Amino acid sequence: MRLFEAIVDANQRASKGDASAGVHVSEYAGSLPVVVLTCIDPRLNSLLPGVLGVPTEQFIWLRNAGNIITSSLSSTTRSLALACAVEGGREIAIIGHTDCKVCHTSVGEIVDRFRALGVQRERLPDNLVEYFGLFASERQNVIKAVDLVRNSPLIGAKIPVHGLLLDTVTGKLECLVNGYQTLSAPLSASPAAHVNVNGPSLTKVAQVSSTEGEEVSSAAPNPTTAPPSPPPLLPRRAIRQRAPWER
Amino acid sequence: MRLFEAIVDANQRASKGDASAGVHVSEYAGSLPVVVLTCIDPRLNSLLPGVLGVPTEQFIWLRNAGNIITSSLSSTTRSLALACAVEGGREIAIIGHTDCKVCHTSVGEIVDRFRALGVQRERLPDNLVEYFGLFASERQNVIKAVDLVRNSPLIGAKIPVHGLLLDTVTGKLECLVNGYQTLSAPLSASPAAHVNVNGPSLTKVAQVSSTEGEEVSSAAPNPTTAPPSPPPLLPRRAIRQRAPWER
Repeated sequence: MRLFEAIVDANQRASKGDASAGVHVSEYAGSLPVVVLTCIDPRLNSLLPGVLGVPTEQFIWLRNAGNIITSSLSSTTRSLALACAVEGGREIAIIGHTDCKVCHTSVGEIVDRFRALGVQRERLPDNLVEYFGLFASERQNVIKAVDLVRNSPLIGAKIPVHGLLLDTVTGKLECLVNGYQTLSAPLSASPAAHVNVNGPSLTKVAQVSSTEGEEVSSAAPNPTTAPPSPPPLLPRRAIRQRAPWER
Repeated sequence: MRLFEAIVDANQRASKGDASAGVHVSEYAGSLPVVVLTCIDPRLNSLLPGVLGVPTEQFIWLRNAGNIITSSLSSTTRSLALACAVEGGREIAIIGHTDCKVCHTSVGEIVDRFRALGVQRERLPDNLVEYFGLFASERQNVIKAVDLVRNSPLIGAKIPVHGLLLDTVTGKLECLVNGYQTLSAPLSASPAAHVNVNGPSLTKVAQVSSTEGEEVSSAAPNPTTAPPSPPPLLPRRAIRQRAPWER
């Protein structure tokens, strides 16, 4: 197993009560530091570092609202590229999370909230869904982001780009895109098998050590809490369909 | 004093050895949660939350490479706007840091590093300085970013936008732009007095409590380490001059 496979595997074992589940991060020196893009949700501040277990000095953390990638040359893609070129990142993981406010806030609500802040509708871009990158599914949002980054001319072909989803209640990690499998075959040209299109059946979760090389007797944050059943993921092809506002 | 003034003041007192320096964050409920944009440098992972002392659940953290804002409608400005509208952020602080790799890496070095990752020069945008938002001064980069955000149509006029610089060695905070003073007068139209144009003479640093409402006997991370003397800040007008690559 490689680093993120080991992280997800250990998280899954920990969620099942395996107190010895953990990852010897020191065995994956070639994968460090890692570059992780997440949302800005404050719940992730303390949750995510512990769930991944990557030593803090090897953890390059990018954050934007909704962990959204709007294009292969967007500002966030630029940051991911610099994280690899300047900060030395070896692998990229885009990690969405359940109960994302950016996902669950409607355009009407956003307009109302901006108005409450003194920003009238006419000051906002015409197409709010497109501009703010609003999305209806946390899973699809991650998969789309991985696709754009994987195919970006700024990201080296040898940099794995993973997609995961973090359950903010249970701490479980779900693997949506295994970036090791798309190294030589860009996601947009690869078969759907690279993506976890079956939802829960391929779900893997992990809990890893928080200190390099140290095996930790750990558990997911709330291992006794049954996770909500994730809805079936839409078929891969649906992701490439243009949304109504794009037509 | 308001929240960020109190944070900087307490940081300064702590750096001078005042063991009682701290901030009663609970007194500033109207300023919480705060939205903070920083660089992705891993040194900030543990340093920044402690230096600010804002409770983790009130700390909305955005991060990109170099804490760069490229325009008033850029992807990162979009995230800042959503952080206020969707996540409820009340104040914005853009916090640069000393010894920033994005600042201290030359265009030639970036090209070399991308090439080492398999990304040839021809795959990168023509104007690398402009595209990657490279900058020569951490201070000017923060002030420019504050200016763009303060004047963004997406940011409500009542949201203070502060600019600070964090010394990654000493933990000292320097106030570059007091966002409370530019609430009704956008920075680009305000006098230079709003900006710390005198460098060290107006420097303020703080250390705050890490728990809401709790006074902490704290000190800057390395209070005995003398901070490097910051270079004089360029006059405000210089910031508005177009860089050579923009001409």
